[in-house]
Amino acid sequence: MPLGDVERFLSPTGRELHESAIRRMGTVAARQPDLISFAAGYPAADVFPLAELRDVAADLLGREGDAIQYGPTRGYAPLIEALVREMSRRSVTVTPEELLITTGSQQGLDLVARVLTGPDEAVLVELPTFTGAISALRNAQAHIAGVRQAADGIDLDDLERVTQRLAREGRRVKLLYVVPNFQNPTGRLLSLEHRRALLAWAARHDTLIVEDDPYGALSFEGEVVPGGTLPLKAFDEEGRVVYLSSFSKTLAPGFRVGWMAAVAPLVERFEIAKQAADLATGTLDQRFACEALTRGVIDRLVPRLRRVYQTRRDLMLEGLASMLSDRLTWVTPHGGFFIWATLPPGERDTALLDRALEERLLFVAGSAFFVDGSGHDTIRLAFSAAPEARIPEGVARLARAISRRPVESQTAPR
Amino acid sequence: MPLGDVERFLSPTGRELHESAIRRMGTVAARQPDLISFAAGYPAADVFPLAELRDVAADLLGREGDAIQYGPTRGYAPLIEALVREMSRRSVTVTPEELLITTGSQQGLDLVARVLTGPDEAVLVELPTFTGAISALRNAQAHIAGVRQAADGIDLDDLERVTQRLAREGRRVKLLYVVPNFQNPTGRLLSLEHRRALLAWAARHDTLIVEDDPYGALSFEGEVVPGGTLPLKAFDEEGRVVYLSSFSKTLAPGFRVGWMAAVAPLVERFEIAKQAADLATGTLDQRFACEALTRGVIDRLVPRLRRVYQTRRDLMLEGLASMLSDRLTWVTPHGGFFIWATLPPGERDTALLDRALEERLLFVAGSAFFVDGSGHDTIRLAFSAAPEARIPEGVARLARAISRRPVESQTAPR
Repeated sequence: MPLGDVERFLSPTGRELHESAIRRMGTVAARQPDLISFAAGYPAADVFPLAELRDVAADLLGREGDAIQYGPTRGYAPLIEALVREMSRRSVTVTPEELLITTGSQQGLDLVARVLTGPDEAVLVELPTFTGAISALRNAQAHIAGVRQAADGIDLDDLERVTQRLAREGRRVKLLYVVPNFQNPTGRLLSLEHRRALLAWAARHDTLIVEDDPYGALSFEGEVVPGGTLPLKAFDEEGRVVYLSSFSKTLAPGFRVGWMAAVAPLVERFEIAKQAADLATGTLDQRFACEALTRGVIDRLVPRLRRVYQTRRDLMLEGLASMLSDRLTWVTPHGGFFIWATLPPGERDTALLDRALEERLLFVAGSAFFVDGSGHDTIRLAFSAAPEARIPEGVARLARAISRRPVESQTAPR
Repeated sequence: MPLGDVERFLSPTGRELHESAIRRMGTVAARQPDLISFAAGYPAADVFPLAELRDVAADLLGREGDAIQYGPTRGYAPLIEALVREMSRRSVTVTPEELLITTGSQQGLDLVARVLTGPDEAVLVELPTFTGAISALRNAQAHIAGVRQAADGIDLDDLERVTQRLAREGRRVKLLYVVPNFQNPTGRLLSLEHRRALLAWAARHDTLIVEDDPYGALSFEGEVVPGGTLPLKAFDEEGRVVYLSSFSKTLAPGFRVGWMAAVAPLVERFEIAKQAADLATGTLDQRFACEALTRGVIDRLVPRLRRVYQTRRDLMLEGLASMLSDRLTWVTPHGGFFIWATLPPGERDTALLDRALEERLLFVAGSAFFVDGSGHDTIRLAFSAAPEARIPEGVARLARAISRRPVESQTAPR
């Protein structure tokens, strides 16, 4: 008997897997010649410290075979020690028992989803939020509810409203997922007052906060108040914050090294789950990350990264202001990788993306970041990976795509 | 309110996570000076091809930043192409659409568990079987049933018996997990007749087979008939086999690069699940694996690995024969990493391990590999990672630990 349709072999999780919108687009992009991509949130590859990493590689592979042997699930001990110091620089006091190395912070999200949330358990995310978090939570079959954003981050009134609505439905909120620093996709920075308010909310409702912080180091010179990117975890006296971060944006993403910080009993659970997920994060990759931290490679690189991304952001803002200020509105980010734009009335993200592809421009349709089916009037433009010389042309293509909107759809919908 | 006990935040999966017995022992081991370990199935680090890998690293990091940029979830395309050829050498014809790169084959097991099995769905494993598979299946909350082994691999009569017992309970078997080549933990080689019989069983009951093949290349010179390690996947005309393999035993485990081969619709599902698990396997690690394959590093290394492991196996067998032949029986493996031994009547694996630790010897208690609570009369001795000069002394310590059994327990239990 030939195998035929595989549906009968799938688990409930296997049947409900959904391909992310961003991933689908990546497939399209590969086929277009002369494409300009504002889509993927890739770091700038031309700034990777290749020469220093070559030296590190020669040293690591010059010693004994330990650098490519199996290692402990918890992580490479010297890297954990280095991260205790790194967290201290971020004003967070942790012990090694409160840290776990993960295979990128995406694995941290997956461990959070599996260890803390199960079928029908309520979790909160921002509207909009990072698609990787949505996928991980969906795969755990969590009940995901969205909370609106205001200009300075998550809307606290809506947060309370949604929490209470869920309580009336008999659902206790297990956790809130937030990206306080230069959020993906909006680029917004959560105010310090809001950070403290979130911790108070978590204490009031006895819930956890999952704080994802890949972009905190990438604030733009002179645009953020001192301490403006301090993690929630720095104020977390009760241990309610599970903090995730990564080397993907300050060193390079191909190493797939991230980390989690949380109270020790939770980290133990994440560690046991990680063991069955991939045994351990790559041994050599962890040593690259450790050397990059301890030899000062990252400290030397970060100021340069800030300037590079600030320059690219400026180029994109200039293009938007000169070509699209009458049709788009946008959030000016003060760090990170993204500009979040709102489309003119009657325009729809997916339809615009189709026309942009005809102009050989790629971005992400904003609705991909919303768990409630909304957001079709928004788009995410990543300025991080596009070569500087191409950014003005990319914005020009966006302007042409918007101008080409068919006449019948240019009247505002009722 | 301080956080207190975290139990209330855990998911059903999070509450049921169990630390593996092997992992607990690793923690103990680290503290013992002058310990000899026959426990972890680590490859021999002194044979890692460090010099060749240094050249590869210099080349990879000498080019553009692509080698450490994000990559596609499916895997690095040239590595996938190289694996199409590698699978062909293993007599398996696959297309790139039927392959997925995984973060070690442990991730392959985790993806299988999540995509194919769910709460209370029946899966079959051998008695005994690899602990990493048990953990992954347990975390998916599968209903795991054990099938006994005979001298030439899984007992086909027991397989049919267990399948029918589950059917009477109203449970359809979703999959059978097997390690046909030099099984972990028993070192047994599944006969070709049994391989074909398993495929017939799978067709008869409309089920899948997950074939885990980390050790197939490591057969010992002159001990295995030609074609004796051919994968089940080579005979899989219906597409019922999900094949897993890895670079961990033929190159080095620290790279965390493995792969899966299955029919394209299943690979698509695994790929989507992988995206939320860790986005992609390490970019640089995949390129190391690709270069090691295409430059012939692995082809040059494997004959040497076979000799090294055969020598270590011989040393351990000689020690057992001279010091323990009156008290232990064992399976002679013709490849792989492990010797599986049965203890004398009245001896118990965990009690013996306690005494062995006092002699500064570590191994794995056999019961860790059984899903039915049995196996306390067995132990697994890994000869792969112990320095050759230490193997006789390790066996001597084992003999002393067995001799030290308290008198009252030396009478056979009723």
